[in-house]
Amino acid sequence: MNETFVIAQGGGPTAVINQTLVGAVLEARRRHPGCRVLGSRFGVRGIKNGDYVDLSQRSEEELRRIAATPSAALGSTRDKPDAAYCEVILKGLRDASATAFIYIGGNDTAGTQQILADASGGGIAFVHAPKTIDNDLEENDHTPGFISAAEFVASAFLSVDLDFRALPGIYAGIVMGRHAGFLTAASAAWRLDEDSGPHLVYVPERAFERARFVDDVKATMAKHGRCIIALSEGISSASGRSMVEELVPAEMLERDAHGNVRLSGTDLGQAIERILADDLKGTRARVDTFGYLPRGNIGAISPVDAKEAFDAGAFAVEAAAHGGGSVALQEEGGKTVIRLVPLSAVAGKTRHMPADFLDADENRLSAKGHAYLDRLLPKKFEPGKPFV
Amino acid sequence: MNETFVIAQGGGPTAVINQTLVGAVLEARRRHPGCRVLGSRFGVRGIKNGDYVDLSQRSEEELRRIAATPSAALGSTRDKPDAAYCEVILKGLRDASATAFIYIGGNDTAGTQQILADASGGGIAFVHAPKTIDNDLEENDHTPGFISAAEFVASAFLSVDLDFRALPGIYAGIVMGRHAGFLTAASAAWRLDEDSGPHLVYVPERAFERARFVDDVKATMAKHGRCIIALSEGISSASGRSMVEELVPAEMLERDAHGNVRLSGTDLGQAIERILADDLKGTRARVDTFGYLPRGNIGAISPVDAKEAFDAGAFAVEAAAHGGGSVALQEEGGKTVIRLVPLSAVAGKTRHMPADFLDADENRLSAKGHAYLDRLLPKKFEPGKPFV
Repeated sequence: MNETFVIAQGGGPTAVINQTLVGAVLEARRRHPGCRVLGSRFGVRGIKNGDYVDLSQRSEEELRRIAATPSAALGSTRDKPDAAYCEVILKGLRDASATAFIYIGGNDTAGTQQILADASGGGIAFVHAPKTIDNDLEENDHTPGFISAAEFVASAFLSVDLDFRALPGIYAGIVMGRHAGFLTAASAAWRLDEDSGPHLVYVPERAFERARFVDDVKATMAKHGRCIIALSEGISSASGRSMVEELVPAEMLERDAHGNVRLSGTDLGQAIERILADDLKGTRARVDTFGYLPRGNIGAISPVDAKEAFDAGAFAVEAAAHGGGSVALQEEGGKTVIRLVPLSAVAGKTRHMPADFLDADENRLSAKGHAYLDRLLPKKFEPGKPFV
Repeated sequence: MNETFVIAQGGGPTAVINQTLVGAVLEARRRHPGCRVLGSRFGVRGIKNGDYVDLSQRSEEELRRIAATPSAALGSTRDKPDAAYCEVILKGLRDASATAFIYIGGNDTAGTQQILADASGGGIAFVHAPKTIDNDLEENDHTPGFISAAEFVASAFLSVDLDFRALPGIYAGIVMGRHAGFLTAASAAWRLDEDSGPHLVYVPERAFERARFVDDVKATMAKHGRCIIALSEGISSASGRSMVEELVPAEMLERDAHGNVRLSGTDLGQAIERILADDLKGTRARVDTFGYLPRGNIGAISPVDAKEAFDAGAFAVEAAAHGGGSVALQEEGGKTVIRLVPLSAVAGKTRHMPADFLDADENRLSAKGHAYLDRLLPKKFEPGKPFV
């Protein structure tokens, strides 16, 4: 049988999403000599428009170099296809004589694959290969892309903590993460010692209260002489409204087509700066928005992350032979194993950071949270101990 | 004669300022066996308060580890001593029986050394050892700390450009630099090709005009389908007023004791976001404030920068034997050489980025600007060429 693999990349890029692409391409060519491998440009849009890159013959050298390059080499999309859009995609896949469609992305991407699989009536294997710096996919211990981004965040906070030992004050770094706090929690992974920042960690999973925040900052300044804070862009009030909505005047909010408020950008950072300026007058305070810097940084690619992402892509080809599903990185005895799970177990669902990753009464990582990070992010640097 | 070296670190920390500290300590101990080496905590404040770390006996292993650690291990200060403060420092140095005072920092630090040297009446050698990510010291081809920070910025923009190929839109990154644009210009060092971002570079040395900016962004979107922008925090209007002052309501500005407006923070980023939202409605636009991330990042230390910083510290000890002055990194036949120059040649002066580092009519790096960066920042990555 002449196999034709269509492969696409969806959602926000990562440092290693091209590893998954190339892992799939090379494995398809290895298992199915003579097969066709088509890369769809800009996610499912390429299928809709018949816009493909033929990857069947590209040299392994070129592909390996793409694999080591961050961001989605095929382009990506934020499109969330509805039933009608899915019909168009199915027609496109049939026109391309696709026998398998591998879609690399997060929970929305898995959702698209499930709709397609349900509507297809067979003949094409639909595989979701995981990717997200948010680390928020069900069934996964962690996701390709997370470790690299997390190492960037860990190294940035280790460094900023050293900076603010030298010139004391308050520092807040705003980290991507709409619903899940894993990436923000990674800020604490490489703390030098108990005195080290981040001293306060705020994630979407725990309600943010302005008064409590100010009290916490004051207490930290009194205890450590500086205060390093990590905040997720998606922190929310007890009522579940994002703090960007709570703190930013309505007329200044930007919403997307789905009505979601834009969280990336400097809005939350500004609001935090104002709170610190109002309630901790006279204390040096600085806020940075990390934004896009962690998510596909060519200077911070984890070899472990790269290998797992590649392996997930190769596994996706095997998964196609089993009729499709969602590829998941799971943990077994401290090792990462790759398994196939049903699309429905991942599609459209958000895995939150477990509540007990934070101490019950304080906004800092618990022993359990640290243990999780220690396993995924073994310390990469051994800084000396400053003299102050 | 019993030598006593007092060493301090001033101004904003860098990734390699501890290399200079340790280079000086080890060289002092090598050249003057039995000498005392005192590290002053928090810049000249430690001398004022008699607050020293005795570095005479610390193990080389500990010191080498500190050298490889970013930020100022002795702590730093923004104090700019006046004549009265300098008298207190001189008394402190005499009380410590100092024969040399090595102060590692930027042009303000060199200024302090010059005041001290002039007021001392001899007996103590005053040496300034260079450090600044801003790269704005006269007499220097480049400064220790710049290359590491510049590599961070170069790699971040290379990465963000790849990200925005996958999900097109406008991206602006705000980079430190009050008066000199070198660090912001480094954003263009590792461009993949002519199509690559940053497409627009705005530095303090060239007046920023809102209308021209909007036109440039629109033209770039039309040509490249995305627009990657690097802006210095210190960009100014034609009248010389910083854009933070021009764009941010007066009541929201933060000023320091000297009346300088705080440029770090999210103010400029917010203002740029508003401009893009108003004048390029409907186009996806994202702004990040790099802030503290480039300046002492443990994940982005250049070995060349580290070595030059170490050598500058060792040279400072030799400079003390010659009566003091300012240590400068100069260029000779494409190589970096270290020379001693008078304190007055560096003190309080700002070296600007040469006007011809930018094209005359466009906000992008000229061939000359690229040649300078190519020499200092040889390409570290060979990314593959995306399929979009």
